[in-house]
Amino acid sequence: MAVTQETMIVDVDGETIDISGVIQPIDGDASGKNLLCMQQLNAEGIQPYIDEAYAAELIIKNRSRNGINLLPHVVLKAVMRQPSTRTGGSITTAMRKLGGTAELISGMHSSSEAKGETLADSWVAFATQADIIGTRTAEDWGPALAAHAINEAVEYGQLWQRVPVINLGDGRNEHPTQALGDLFTIHKRFKRFEGLRLAVVGDHERYRAHHSLMLGAAAVGMEIIVVESPAAPIPSSLVELLGANLVARHGDLDIAMADTDVLYLGRNPDEYTKKDDEDEEIVRREKARSEQLAADYEGWIVDYDRLQRMKPGSIVMHPRPRRDELNPDADSDPRMKDVEQMANMIPMRMAIIARHLGKSIVEHV
Amino acid sequence: MAVTQETMIVDVDGETIDISGVIQPIDGDASGKNLLCMQQLNAEGIQPYIDEAYAAELIIKNRSRNGINLLPHVVLKAVMRQPSTRTGGSITTAMRKLGGTAELISGMHSSSEAKGETLADSWVAFATQADIIGTRTAEDWGPALAAHAINEAVEYGQLWQRVPVINLGDGRNEHPTQALGDLFTIHKRFKRFEGLRLAVVGDHERYRAHHSLMLGAAAVGMEIIVVESPAAPIPSSLVELLGANLVARHGDLDIAMADTDVLYLGRNPDEYTKKDDEDEEIVRREKARSEQLAADYEGWIVDYDRLQRMKPGSIVMHPRPRRDELNPDADSDPRMKDVEQMANMIPMRMAIIARHLGKSIVEHV
Amino acid sequence: MAVTQETMIVDVDGETIDISGVIQPIDGDASGKNLLCMQQLNAEGIQPYIDEAYAAELIIKNRSRNGINLLPHVVLKAVMRQPSTRTGGSITTAMRKLGGTAELISGMHSSSEAKGETLADSWVAFATQADIIGTRTAEDWGPALAAHAINEAVEYGQLWQRVPVINLGDGRNEHPTQALGDLFTIHKRFKRFEGLRLAVVGDHERYRAHHSLMLGAAAVGMEIIVVESPAAPIPSSLVELLGANLVARHGDLDIAMADTDVLYLGRNPDEYTKKDDEDEEIVRREKARSEQLAADYEGWIVDYDRLQRMKPGSIVMHPRPRRDELNPDADSDPRMKDVEQMANMIPMRMAIIARHLGKSIVEHV
Repeated sequence: MAVTQETMIVDVDGETIDISGVIQPIDGDASGKNLLCMQQLNAEGIQPYIDEAYAAELIIKNRSRNGINLLPHVVLKAVMRQPSTRTGGSITTAMRKLGGTAELISGMHSSSEAKGETLADSWVAFATQADIIGTRTAEDWGPALAAHAINEAVEYGQLWQRVPVINLGDGRNEHPTQALGDLFTIHKRFKRFEGLRLAVVGDHERYRAHHSLMLGAAAVGMEIIVVESPAAPIPSSLVELLGANLVARHGDLDIAMADTDVLYLGRNPDEYTKKDDEDEEIVRREKARSEQLAADYEGWIVDYDRLQRMKPGSIVMHPRPRRDELNPDADSDPRMKDVEQMANMIPMRMAIIARHLGKSIVEHV
Repeated sequence: MAVTQETMIVDVDGETIDISGVIQPIDGDASGKNLLCMQQLNAEGIQPYIDEAYAAELIIKNRSRNGINLLPHVVLKAVMRQPSTRTGGSITTAMRKLGGTAELISGMHSSSEAKGETLADSWVAFATQADIIGTRTAEDWGPALAAHAINEAVEYGQLWQRVPVINLGDGRNEHPTQALGDLFTIHKRFKRFEGLRLAVVGDHERYRAHHSLMLGAAAVGMEIIVVESPAAPIPSSLVELLGANLVARHGDLDIAMADTDVLYLGRNPDEYTKKDDEDEEIVRREKARSEQLAADYEGWIVDYDRLQRMKPGSIVMHPRPRRDELNPDADSDPRMKDVEQMANMIPMRMAIIARHLGKSIVEHV
Repeated sequence: MAVTQETMIVDVDGETIDISGVIQPIDGDASGKNLLCMQQLNAEGIQPYIDEAYAAELIIKNRSRNGINLLPHVVLKAVMRQPSTRTGGSITTAMRKLGGTAELISGMHSSSEAKGETLADSWVAFATQADIIGTRTAEDWGPALAAHAINEAVEYGQLWQRVPVINLGDGRNEHPTQALGDLFTIHKRFKRFEGLRLAVVGDHERYRAHHSLMLGAAAVGMEIIVVESPAAPIPSSLVELLGANLVARHGDLDIAMADTDVLYLGRNPDEYTKKDDEDEEIVRREKARSEQLAADYEGWIVDYDRLQRMKPGSIVMHPRPRRDELNPDADSDPRMKDVEQMANMIPMRMAIIARHLGKSIVEHV
């Protein structure tokens, strides 16, 4: 997320790699390309995903169809290195609704890595048995490492096909398929992006869904308000990328709620809090950060009553799982779109798989 | 299993829920309904499952067919919260034989729950990526909680479709798909239920397959003999539900074997024995219970020689896995139906999936 | 691997079984047969697999096909008792490319075994829910035990169909699907086997891929050079079976490289090194063995520079995962065929599944 087109040198699990070769702009044609981060997409790049997702939704909600035989015999492997039954199960469902086949490999370590294999070797091996790979990694840019290893094997003539890699969440970095699904949810409600105001609440430093959504929202012309804690501010590199679309930064949820079209909540990703380190100063800083952030989250709890401050017709989103930050007593309010948001991930991930394999759903509606 | 139509208030994992809204009678039309317990079924409700299972079996045993393309693009998730490779693998095979797709999620904890999500939220999330859910839970009424959460999300307009929940075994409570498959095994041998005598041997308090089978057998008019231990007697609520169909209760296996059409064995489910508790009295009682039950199981071991006491044409069933209670030296006796019983689960689970999704296999034979 | 047709009595996990009934010669017709070890195959038996694999490859590389609808509704279970995401994921992909369905069960213990079930019972249970089983076991001859248990249940009339068992690697014994895929890789390069020289480097005692490949290579008439360590020599029973095809045994890799068509490397399978035993002498011997073998592996490292000693047009193979024995700096050399070798496993495993289910891919190209 912090990369620029000039300096795409990243460090993944101890390996320094140049990922510029695997991060291409995605415009009209996504065929064969990886989906690694939102910087690959501008407004024109995003629209086809939305269009395809609308088509996919029409098809799966048609009880006499339930899906489409678009990708027979095509194999997706969902390699969830960071355990995921949710996102993993969503992309496998999406592939099956397209008539393809999918395998969810969640939280298991590759048995070959246990035998001493490098990560790069492991990715090349997966590429020999899949036509497309979706993956979640604990490391930032882990999917880019996968794409890089596959790229190299293609260039050496070792792999007969370039297998697209879809990032399903990489550490504290990005979650582009989530962001595209979120934009689809927004578009379903408002039928446009221009002129909409989005308020994003929570840990802006380490919550990957926030990063990707804001980049996507900026690309399609939405105004963004960041409700943040001084303990977990939006990274400066992201501020730069958002430019004029970032219209406000503060910590007052009520002000943000009163005047926004889309309120976007997120869980406190406290699993990233570093509790052990040789350097005591780091542990002390992490503890202080964690305490302040937790206190700020306390003040941002949304329940039914507080929800009533929002405009009629506005919506509340949350990429789930939720904890205390969103009280179930709000579930009955029609502004709550968090469940539909999860459901929208199926047609959007169908759109993503289809497009990155060079297919279109639209023409089959 | 202990519920009545009036008081369907159950406690699942600390949550008190009223499950009356999700437990509907299943008569001619099972479409869209949950299958949670045998009390949903009377004789007329059971027969269509048997008819559909016969049809399913004809199709899968036809080498030029192997299955039927009845449910293309339809997605089953088998969420085995209590680990199960057996029942989980059976329902996924059943779905695939119907031309649908299936995913087995066995023994993994939902990664979202690890992040602090409630069980109810987790079920709603699964419902956004499946058309039908099969589940096994360690808690009694766990699948009812799933159905309840999904129901609520449908009522709030959050979910676009009601996803049927199929109970694949919930704690010490019920195992309705097993019971339906068992009734199919009995019907395949005798072509009728009326007038047959069934003897059920083992732990009648905590063995869920026994509970469901006896309710089903009573519904279709079989006579039931309970061979029980004073340490693990049949619950009084179940006695009441079985009514006049329960013709005898005692601990003498030999007497039961001499005059029964179907002998039904079951493993000692000693994994439920409570070994730790603050209350020493509970631990003492559990230990005494466990010792007496183990001793009674010793006296109930069926081997080839003992099997010869049974009538010609009678059958022995066991829902497997078996331990010492059924000696492998009996395997060669033609009365042993325990392996066919496992195989029969495939066509019966095909019947269940098809019916609860509003489809019929019979018309495609 | 040490068995002869006369004495097929093996010990699996404490059970002594006669596996002669499940190890049949595979000639023209593989339908319904198990694939357990390479001794089932002679040159005429191997050729049809190669032919079918060529056909399968043509089909999956055809972008407008991606696979073939040869086995609709047919169910494969990949029961990887020894955890395997690689080989397990390869056979499931192969089945899906054939239009069948597949389930990967990797590294999970059967939940039924946790309840006290025997291995034999567990295999019969899997056979009730699959049309074909692929399996990897930690024990030598584990798949033969599976086939034996299934055989018995068929003979007793308990199972309605004989479910073929495909060995996907059994302990330190054999890996026949790997060997067939390896022979396919060799044939793709040279279009023949006769007159080719194969040098196999590494632990010849415990590395199952070496055992199976050498048996296969001997069957099709290749000359074999064994580069071995005195700590892990080729077993005498294997020497006997290879006969005149085994042309040299020594420890000098450079000599072998200079004059071979196919160099076959393998990882040091040190997970089999016994580190604990009541008998101190065994632990001492294992330690000495391990140290010498590690030292010999040090001397056998292949990197780009050393690779240049090989003839133009020769190839280097490694069944992956690799560790230090094969340096990634060699990846760019066109003689490296280890990645293509992995990819070739898909069409070969398609060939195996199809043939053992009585189908032919060739006629559908």
